[in-house]
Amino acid sequence: MEETSKLGKFTAINEIARRRGFFWNSYEIYGGAGGFVAYGPLGTRLKQNIENKLRDIFVKQVGILEMESSVITPGKVFEASGHVANFKEPMVECIKCNKRFRADHLLEEHAKISSATAEKMSLDEIKFAIDENGIRCPDCGGNFNPPQQFLTMFVTTIGPYAGATGYGRPEAAQGIFVEFNRLFAVAREKLPFGVIQIGHALRNEISPRQGLIRLREFTICDLEFFFDPEKPCCHLLKDVENEVLPILLGETRLKNSEETIKVTVHEALDRKIVRSEWQAFFMAMAKRLLVEIGVPEEKQRFIEKLPWEKAHYSSQSFDQEVLLDRYGWTEVSGHAYRTDYDLSSHMKASGADMRVFKEYDTPVETEQVIVKPLMAKLGPVFKKESAKVGELISKVDPQIIRVAFEKHGYYMAGNYKILPEHVEICSQKIVERGKRFIPHVVEPSFGSDRLFYVALEYAYSIKDDRVVMKFPPCIAPTQIGVYPLMSKDGLDTKALELQKRLTREGFTVEYDETGSIGRRYARADEAGIPLGITVDYDTLRDETVTIRDRDSWRQVRSPIKDLPQLMHLYFQGKINFENLGKLV
Amino acid sequence: MEETSKLGKFTAINEIARRRGFFWNSYEIYGGAGGFVAYGPLGTRLKQNIENKLRDIFVKQVGILEMESSVITPGKVFEASGHVANFKEPMVECIKCNKRFRADHLLEEHAKISSATAEKMSLDEIKFAIDENGIRCPDCGGNFNPPQQFLTMFVTTIGPYAGATGYGRPEAAQGIFVEFNRLFAVAREKLPFGVIQIGHALRNEISPRQGLIRLREFTICDLEFFFDPEKPCCHLLKDVENEVLPILLGETRLKNSEETIKVTVHEALDRKIVRSEWQAFFMAMAKRLLVEIGVPEEKQRFIEKLPWEKAHYSSQSFDQEVLLDRYGWTEVSGHAYRTDYDLSSHMKASGADMRVFKEYDTPVETEQVIVKPLMAKLGPVFKKESAKVGELISKVDPQIIRVAFEKHGYYMAGNYKILPEHVEICSQKIVERGKRFIPHVVEPSFGSDRLFYVALEYAYSIKDDRVVMKFPPCIAPTQIGVYPLMSKDGLDTKALELQKRLTREGFTVEYDETGSIGRRYARADEAGIPLGITVDYDTLRDETVTIRDRDSWRQVRSPIKDLPQLMHLYFQGKINFENLGKLV
Repeated sequence: MEETSKLGKFTAINEIARRRGFFWNSYEIYGGAGGFVAYGPLGTRLKQNIENKLRDIFVKQVGILEMESSVITPGKVFEASGHVANFKEPMVECIKCNKRFRADHLLEEHAKISSATAEKMSLDEIKFAIDENGIRCPDCGGNFNPPQQFLTMFVTTIGPYAGATGYGRPEAAQGIFVEFNRLFAVAREKLPFGVIQIGHALRNEISPRQGLIRLREFTICDLEFFFDPEKPCCHLLKDVENEVLPILLGETRLKNSEETIKVTVHEALDRKIVRSEWQAFFMAMAKRLLVEIGVPEEKQRFIEKLPWEKAHYSSQSFDQEVLLDRYGWTEVSGHAYRTDYDLSSHMKASGADMRVFKEYDTPVETEQVIVKPLMAKLGPVFKKESAKVGELISKVDPQIIRVAFEKHGYYMAGNYKILPEHVEICSQKIVERGKRFIPHVVEPSFGSDRLFYVALEYAYSIKDDRVVMKFPPCIAPTQIGVYPLMSKDGLDTKALELQKRLTREGFTVEYDETGSIGRRYARADEAGIPLGITVDYDTLRDETVTIRDRDSWRQVRSPIKDLPQLMHLYFQGKINFENLGKLV
Repeated sequence: MEETSKLGKFTAINEIARRRGFFWNSYEIYGGAGGFVAYGPLGTRLKQNIENKLRDIFVKQVGILEMESSVITPGKVFEASGHVANFKEPMVECIKCNKRFRADHLLEEHAKISSATAEKMSLDEIKFAIDENGIRCPDCGGNFNPPQQFLTMFVTTIGPYAGATGYGRPEAAQGIFVEFNRLFAVAREKLPFGVIQIGHALRNEISPRQGLIRLREFTICDLEFFFDPEKPCCHLLKDVENEVLPILLGETRLKNSEETIKVTVHEALDRKIVRSEWQAFFMAMAKRLLVEIGVPEEKQRFIEKLPWEKAHYSSQSFDQEVLLDRYGWTEVSGHAYRTDYDLSSHMKASGADMRVFKEYDTPVETEQVIVKPLMAKLGPVFKKESAKVGELISKVDPQIIRVAFEKHGYYMAGNYKILPEHVEICSQKIVERGKRFIPHVVEPSFGSDRLFYVALEYAYSIKDDRVVMKFPPCIAPTQIGVYPLMSKDGLDTKALELQKRLTREGFTVEYDETGSIGRRYARADEAGIPLGITVDYDTLRDETVTIRDRDSWRQVRSPIKDLPQLMHLYFQGKINFENLGKLV
């Protein structure tokens, strides 16, 4: 069964996903709605476990702060961030049937123009390519109207006034940037620090496809890491410097090659393949995360984005990709060096000071020329207006006044003629304790739904013609199954007690008494439950149970009283299945 | 300090919330956006812990299934559910300054008309009350335009076609109802079963106020519990039947009294105060949840909703309320008996069969009269049309044909005259194995942000002029603080090691070395960290540390090696602070 055809494996996963309640297309009773999925009970837990694994790595271990803000966002935010201007895709409409398509997708499918190339084409170039390749409406064969840009944000109105435009956020990052000042205060005003937000996001795709890979509503995990660009060193680099990153360089891609180089984090930085230490650090952590959710490192790579592929805010970008059976290499996380683009934009648009203060090691002394209005001299000349004139003078760059005096012998402050005797020009010593600057940002950004799909595909395996979902125990949606051998003679009561007890210990435990024990094991394997505990007649006599391993189908026997402790150690990854008891 | 004025306490909580990063109003740099809040790091964790407590009770203990679907929802769903027609609030607009207000709020504030009364008023009655009470624009004193209904759902367009209206879901419940068939299959087609969805929801409030209590974007926890109305018994009732519910009855409210009665779940059902066993069960569980997040039972009550206060889908509703310092009695959960309203509506609108099949204990045999067209007789009479005539006959209720024969001697099928000899009337035995029916639904629905605010207010306390946030340990955003007495002599290294070790054990642990130990304790009390572990010079000698209790400020001394185990037991609620070591 290892040679399951590509369509077969994809179809099989989707069939299991629907039948067992991992996920399915939403709103089927209303004919479906492209780009929306529903996660069933198993899927919801799997997705949560993956998100919690991400939290575990970044929030608990690295110390990143977590925040939560709204999906609906006032228009100003995405105007300032550049999304209203840039978050668009080229679209064509069929003249005949009025159906609309993403122009770049048509070029990819019908003119073999790579997405990398299509992304840098202007609307005119797209029109030319469509005409040249004779691309017509895939649905009715009609011709297309000229391509236009379509804003792929959901638009709405906030409150009862027509003018108050709101957008569904296409990323959680802006929710962090606009709250930077408060978050920085909470971080006790120390750099570097990072903030993560995990939440729903929206992209109003023109024609969504590819199931979980391209959704209109999805869960994004945006991590914004703020640091002083003059102190770009990552103090945690030691932990990852020997981690190997498989990288497909931009220059290699330009040669139409897909050859990756394998470099350690250390080398990647030394050779300036990755420009920021923090970016390299997060790429290494991202690789580890994927390994933990079941993707071996040889099925991962990082591709460097070409200049025209990068988001409008990014200085250097890598995509982390995973090899998928049907979709090929697929992005699961993006790693962008956003510099100070976002904070600067919001600072400019809002007028709020978003700079942070940095103290110099030793204060810097500078001389500053100042112009002091002499009120005693101004009074007799300007009478009632002398205060106003004085104020005008103080607002002008002293240098301008000095030059005017030298050139003309006077300076015109508005309509008021100021003579040298009206003011005193002197210099003053200024001690600067430090300076204000805008932090730089490195951003790893994960798509939760893609991580979910990847985990599903890499868990999928066939053993003796049966599906076994081999989720790593740390993300398995159900941890333990409890089964009475027969649902009578007190075996069921005993098993239910055990299920309750293990649930109280914090485990996710399923009780199943329906059908033969073989059928129940098969059902459990398909749901990816790592351990199955069977209560049999011996249990009533000696208080021991059988524990079955999902992957090897081997069984061990253990006393009930040891189970809580054993289960904790097993799911913390401290012991293996073999350590759970005596092999049967 | 116990007599903190009401304004004082409210203000103090909001100040701490902002400063320590529990929550604040979003988008402040752009002048704010009413009805949106941002949760900072402490708040995000507190909110997650509360949601996880809810999961723990309902998903893990009761066995409710969890699902996740989209916030943006195709228009058809909310047309079918009745929201497009009913989810509206009365609004008035000032003629002079064009500002818009919720009419019922104006009546409450300026005409002392209770919300219960305002909610049942028609637009004409509202207009009359506004005129009669001389209510004018609170901002400019202008008169109002006639009141109109404002749809309080966010409206958007899904995809590139103008007609495809989508709404931001105002409740997560519909996401469950529309997926009922799949969810029922996942539940192995057995009733009763329940599904919960915890996620963001949107209500486009006209003029939001009251901070966290009335938001435009919030987190809702909707639990839909499906059962057979002919088998309404709750098999879990035993666990809660002696739980006391303080209830403010509808009839009492009509007498303008706020007197609650205290009845056990058992009595409430016996006296038909609560009509559904499952509803009573969930009310009891809701009470326990609130106790667990820190609200004593005497600060809780359930009020019965009056007919005109209930949502359009509800047959009997109770609100669970908590007494808040500033807002008075405030709804934290709603308990509605939604009957088969929603499934029926979606079945009608979509055409999908959402009934479930119920097998009879013994199959039911019935006699059915049938009319068989005799083609041999019809042929000669109706020629080419005889097939059509035969079909017409089979579609008619046999009873009608029999009556026509008796009365007139013939039956007119359209324009065709059917005589008794054209057909054979006979009776046939039908064995019905069971029947199809639409399950009923009881819904407890919690507002996550309100639970959060309630937890914050009930945790707030003052001790020796300092704020101590006494969160129950099970929801405290940070569980453990680790402090080196001094940040030198290896105490810091030792403390950091301990912090890492406890983090690996799964705890949320904060390391703090800044400032005097007293200041650090004070900071920790304000953040509500239940336990503080101090590493001092004795630690280096004997591997023991001090553990400090946030609430009593008492300290015990324990060996480092015992800490993981002790902490687990403490946070699982199995041991008290006193059991953590030897009192210092």
